[in-house]
Amino acid sequence: MPIRLDHRSPDFAEHFAAFLSMKREVSRDIDAAARAIVDDVAARGDTALIEATAKYDRLTLTAETLRVSVEEIAAATAACDPKTVDALKLARDRIETYHRRQLPKDERFTDALGVELGWRWSAVDAAGLYVPGGTAAYPSSVLMDAVPAKVAGVARVVMVVPSPDGKLNPLVLAAASLTGITEVYRVGGAQAVAALAYGTATIKPVAKIVGPGNAYVAAAKRIVFGKVGIDMIAGPSEVLVMADHTGNADWIAADLLAQAEHDVNAQSILLTDDEELAANVERSIESQLSTLPRAAIARPSWNDFGAIILVQSMEEALPLADAIAAEHLEIMTADSEALAARVRNAGAIFIGPHTPEAIGDYVGGSNHVLPTARSARFSSALGVLDFMKRTSILKCGPDQLRALGPAAMTLGVAEGLDAHARSVGLRLNLR
Amino acid sequence: MPIRLDHRSPDFAEHFAAFLSMKREVSRDIDAAARAIVDDVAARGDTALIEATAKYDRLTLTAETLRVSVEEIAAATAACDPKTVDALKLARDRIETYHRRQLPKDERFTDALGVELGWRWSAVDAAGLYVPGGTAAYPSSVLMDAVPAKVAGVARVVMVVPSPDGKLNPLVLAAASLTGITEVYRVGGAQAVAALAYGTATIKPVAKIVGPGNAYVAAAKRIVFGKVGIDMIAGPSEVLVMADHTGNADWIAADLLAQAEHDVNAQSILLTDDEELAANVERSIESQLSTLPRAAIARPSWNDFGAIILVQSMEEALPLADAIAAEHLEIMTADSEALAARVRNAGAIFIGPHTPEAIGDYVGGSNHVLPTARSARFSSALGVLDFMKRTSILKCGPDQLRALGPAAMTLGVAEGLDAHARSVGLRLNLR
Repeated sequence: MPIRLDHRSPDFAEHFAAFLSMKREVSRDIDAAARAIVDDVAARGDTALIEATAKYDRLTLTAETLRVSVEEIAAATAACDPKTVDALKLARDRIETYHRRQLPKDERFTDALGVELGWRWSAVDAAGLYVPGGTAAYPSSVLMDAVPAKVAGVARVVMVVPSPDGKLNPLVLAAASLTGITEVYRVGGAQAVAALAYGTATIKPVAKIVGPGNAYVAAAKRIVFGKVGIDMIAGPSEVLVMADHTGNADWIAADLLAQAEHDVNAQSILLTDDEELAANVERSIESQLSTLPRAAIARPSWNDFGAIILVQSMEEALPLADAIAAEHLEIMTADSEALAARVRNAGAIFIGPHTPEAIGDYVGGSNHVLPTARSARFSSALGVLDFMKRTSILKCGPDQLRALGPAAMTLGVAEGLDAHARSVGLRLNLR
Repeated sequence: MPIRLDHRSPDFAEHFAAFLSMKREVSRDIDAAARAIVDDVAARGDTALIEATAKYDRLTLTAETLRVSVEEIAAATAACDPKTVDALKLARDRIETYHRRQLPKDERFTDALGVELGWRWSAVDAAGLYVPGGTAAYPSSVLMDAVPAKVAGVARVVMVVPSPDGKLNPLVLAAASLTGITEVYRVGGAQAVAALAYGTATIKPVAKIVGPGNAYVAAAKRIVFGKVGIDMIAGPSEVLVMADHTGNADWIAADLLAQAEHDVNAQSILLTDDEELAANVERSIESQLSTLPRAAIARPSWNDFGAIILVQSMEEALPLADAIAAEHLEIMTADSEALAARVRNAGAIFIGPHTPEAIGDYVGGSNHVLPTARSARFSSALGVLDFMKRTSILKCGPDQLRALGPAAMTLGVAEGLDAHARSVGLRLNLR
């Protein structure tokens, strides 16, 4: 039974707060284990990486077989269903078109005093993409990670993907190949993150690591943050559907289940002012679950974390949606566009009844790596800027230094930083 | 004696690698201590915050006195030297002008299929600025943190600043007041970070925490990352000066000392192709040190971490500068501008002999919160984007869904996510 909240209920505020702070993942204390693995790889390089892979992935590697060969990538790609490869190509091209628009512009201007100011964007030298293995090895995620990196202009894009028991999804290699990635290592977990951050004899270090993984990967990314850049700490995924009487119950049920089938910790929420719609959605979910291949995952997700929130008007729903700050927000109301314009916190908004989240997951063009677990309050979809950095530029001539120098000296002295003041004063013959 | 490296030396590569991986801070194992403080404040709120403040800052507070009153802020501001306040106003206005240019544009476009795509930027709801106390309580840093937040449009900007033994720098309160901040709490350390992240009865939680602090603050920021956004993990500061025979040895020496006076762990590096200049800079540093008020800090910094790197040409110097990825890079060569254009990794570049870093620290307009310890390889100066997030937008009508749906279904099925495929198929009457 999903969670039910009714905005009219006198204890709604309390229940909603509890709902927001609900933990969907058992937070195991794996920091110490992840740190031991990271330290070991930092110290012993390939040897530690190979040992950890034998232990956790039951796969015996050597320094020579850590890397997936170009031939293996080509063979995997050739073995894939051409129709699927075509769909990946369509997705790749659309993702590229969208992300090209994110390329930032450099800025350079001269102010009234003649001071030249600005900044310059440049790509990181090397980026590492973490791609999960096993059941969550999604070729679409490879595209979502790799295309922005390539569009940003990253010269070296490296992929790591664990292959438990030696198994590797050929579509993942095909997706890598479609984005021009040739440097792939069959390692995963905290050990792969450490190898990317610190480098080993075989794997040169990168400057940035992106991509979701399990709890060990998340812990390792948190540990190496600062040594390298990371994208975000990914948590379980969620969808919020805002719908009124115009909503199609079967379509909404299908969208909620598409979220629920990801993971037993995924969360699907319906926020509506129509009790009848809510009842119909619930009935449709039960009906669709009966024939869903991944019902064993979707059902516990819906029963444990699914939620139906009833409001008296969609106007009332807006602050609730902002507080939920959903990774994915679908809006199917009479005025979807106007409502969407007023939402402040959401990773991605899918507007209107003909935009199921699945379109955005695959071929819409926008990125499906999105901030989870309420982090859309402060973070964004993966994008081109994640693979770039900005260098500030400042240039004064003698006149500009004369104009600004005295104020800088005043502040240097006020902060007790006399050498700061001197570095200006010497140039102005003031001290 | 500073470190000396000579590019002509046969073991240069080895020594340069050791120089790059040199640790400037003893990394104390304080994660467990920081986590205990964070957990305590998350669990017991104000009570834990007040206890930690009594313990670490030797200051007895109540829920009523946690917050610095508006009267206290006004009184502090009134007590400041008007000349210093004027310099802060000049700095504030210039920082604002520079950062206004960083405001990002929303994007919305319709592609050839009629799919509507884009994104929308919005400010975080609330941001917390961490301002260090004691000797490192710099009003200029308050401006550098607060102005971008205000320009981004953050509705609630909160400042925390520890006041050890009850002492608070009036200029810090004046700077807060000049940027329109009215919500200031006299707390610091890991306990202040926890209060901002989790909230207490007195301090409402924020979505983003920025600003440097000591090792406990850095550890706490790493711990709460994910619950809230953070800017970066700050380390000790550094300057790299690239200079040729055109360089003025006294000015360069003054700039290297301005960095060194910050902290015994600060690092000042001269990278030059002119041995005579290097010798003159060293002599000038010794001479200037003899009269420098903060020589007790600057001298050990220069002796322990200062470095002179000799190259045969500035052309050779470029890859070294990119590897060092300095927080601050000053360029004083015959072709400063051309050389600056070719640098890839640097937090901020100060071009030409009349742009000492101190101008950028205070009144240039660019931000002085910059990536330290080689992190300019992947991160940027604090800016307006740090206080904003991007929401993706996707909108299909029936025709667009018909055009893109089959490829999405193909990928859904290929990834074993049947409910994804269904959510599209149901709408197209395909299954």
